[in-house]
Amino acid sequence: MSDKIYFTPGPSGLYPTVASHIQSALLNDVCSLSHRSKKYESIHTSTVEAIRELLQIPSDFHIFFTGSATEIWDRVLENCVEENSFHLVNGSFSKRFYETAKELNKNPKKFEVAFGKGFNTSEITVPEAELLCMTHNETSSGVMMPLSDIYSIRNQKPDSLLVIDAVSSIPYPIFDFTLVDSVLFSVQKGFGLPAGLGVWVVNNKCIEKANLIATKGKSIGSYHSLPSLLSKSVSNQTPETPNVLGIYLLGKVAQDILNRGADKVRKETELKASLLYDYIEKSANFSAFVENPAHRSTTVVVANTILPSPQINPLLEKYNMSIGTGYGKTKDQQVRIANFPGHSVEQIEELISNLKKSIA
Amino acid sequence: MSDKIYFTPGPSGLYPTVASHIQSALLNDVCSLSHRSKKYESIHTSTVEAIRELLQIPSDFHIFFTGSATEIWDRVLENCVEENSFHLVNGSFSKRFYETAKELNKNPKKFEVAFGKGFNTSEITVPEAELLCMTHNETSSGVMMPLSDIYSIRNQKPDSLLVIDAVSSIPYPIFDFTLVDSVLFSVQKGFGLPAGLGVWVVNNKCIEKANLIATKGKSIGSYHSLPSLLSKSVSNQTPETPNVLGIYLLGKVAQDILNRGADKVRKETELKASLLYDYIEKSANFSAFVENPAHRSTTVVVANTILPSPQINPLLEKYNMSIGTGYGKTKDQQVRIANFPGHSVEQIEELISNLKKSIA
Repeated sequence: MSDKIYFTPGPSGLYPTVASHIQSALLNDVCSLSHRSKKYESIHTSTVEAIRELLQIPSDFHIFFTGSATEIWDRVLENCVEENSFHLVNGSFSKRFYETAKELNKNPKKFEVAFGKGFNTSEITVPEAELLCMTHNETSSGVMMPLSDIYSIRNQKPDSLLVIDAVSSIPYPIFDFTLVDSVLFSVQKGFGLPAGLGVWVVNNKCIEKANLIATKGKSIGSYHSLPSLLSKSVSNQTPETPNVLGIYLLGKVAQDILNRGADKVRKETELKASLLYDYIEKSANFSAFVENPAHRSTTVVVANTILPSPQINPLLEKYNMSIGTGYGKTKDQQVRIANFPGHSVEQIEELISNLKKSIA
Repeated sequence: MSDKIYFTPGPSGLYPTVASHIQSALLNDVCSLSHRSKKYESIHTSTVEAIRELLQIPSDFHIFFTGSATEIWDRVLENCVEENSFHLVNGSFSKRFYETAKELNKNPKKFEVAFGKGFNTSEITVPEAELLCMTHNETSSGVMMPLSDIYSIRNQKPDSLLVIDAVSSIPYPIFDFTLVDSVLFSVQKGFGLPAGLGVWVVNNKCIEKANLIATKGKSIGSYHSLPSLLSKSVSNQTPETPNVLGIYLLGKVAQDILNRGADKVRKETELKASLLYDYIEKSANFSAFVENPAHRSTTVVVANTILPSPQINPLLEKYNMSIGTGYGKTKDQQVRIANFPGHSVEQIEELISNLKKSIA
């Protein structure tokens, strides 16, 4: 790896141990293993076990691998929705999840608030829907839903399935899996890994729903349907030749985080977030984009900037650092700073110091 | 990489330059690039151009990236079939393509011959079907369809779309793209790359078909529908965060093969295949599984073995070599030997010499 530190929200900087794990993968011929071999099954098992421990996922939940988190939007809608889904929308990614449901003819309903806003749970009446879709952390706007809000909304419809998109917050949150049926995420954000792998956590209610839809003669897809994923997962395999290197690296980095201490890493994440927000509030150039502090993301810090964002990275170049611009329409007027486990407290302090020196 | 040589049919041995390309990717922070950045677009463009040149793909065909070739079976059926597809089936993978169409409710028809057999074109009457699906090289049985047979069958229905699964033959064949509408493959076989990337070549007839199905209100999927892939591909991007490292490595290895000389590599492939079949025919232990020499695969050589195949790799261990077992039911009674661009003539000669010494 170069020495440059990427605070971009995704793909982000590689977790510091990734390069050495890639070397060990090459030395051990991980990329030439048959995905039907015992050696592959052992890698698969190690990764699933490390993810289960790190995210505190109960043993009766399944952990499947896909090509991306974007793919899982398709798959969860195909497998868990026959007639209708319900979406909380407050940014570009939660909106895209909703639009995916439209493209799949799933008659989605939504409750939408403006870009950068969080949800006031008392304003939301959840309609009848087979699947409730909530985005824990809006990577586009830096809004994170408090877990208590997610649960209070889901409790309006205890019989619906709930899927949480946690793409840019995992591995920070610990979900209450008695209230959550499915979680999806990718690896190029919080895990600091090369992109090209999605992780899909589901319980048996989701599997049963998929089987029910299939028995009605409706398609739930093919190789990545829940029954197909499950049929291979029981042997610690995948239906297709998967991204074996990605699965290997995910297991190694998840184990590295466990070895550092998952609780310590989560506390550091909160500390680094508070350092960033403190700086932003005092800065003459930056101001927090998300007004309500309770809705501000711990893992993707978004700030308005007076100096147009494309002018900021050139100033950080001499410190060998890079941060993210705003998303979409707000590209120039905002910055996004990733705060993932691979970013140390010292690096965040240095970033703040460099921003102070360079801008204000 | 270790020094072991993998003649397994997939994942196979890494192309000899892969480890050094991974180092350069790490040094250049390829895994931390935004997939919406100019630097990513430049990688994407280089890979598409190298693939286009190597496979002689006309400029009016599009080249898209997916998670796997298995995924493309789903996507091509969703996007190019409203009512029915037609499949030539002669092994486990062509059968799986057919079954995928059933799972997607596409009412597939098939013409099937026994495992290990090729097709006699005079016996085939192609029914009305929107999409003809042919597998150029059956990885499970080692049967390769002569290109002239593919074209003569397709010419029965010039108005149907034709997709060729070329997973384990690419980059050996040069298709006549005036007769072919789509080609799909993955990278862990002929390109000797880490698994986790599919490549989908399509012409505008396929795009038009997808648009036609969509205008009727039927779903063609979401982020990986042909219109969605096309909308990003025109900017040299992908709808989702893709396997950037995989796309980078594919471009580098395709360029390495071009630099060696694509024609030379194809001629070497034929030479190595003839060395392997010559040995097998003379061996007291092995015999060619595919009876008709015209149907024998150039890239995946399958042989019956008297010595059960699980006992063969232990004998090759001291030479640091490994070959593939048979597929599925024929696991123990057959071996499969990959003959890809990453396997040199010298390595194939050494393998044959070692097999002679160890077995017969």
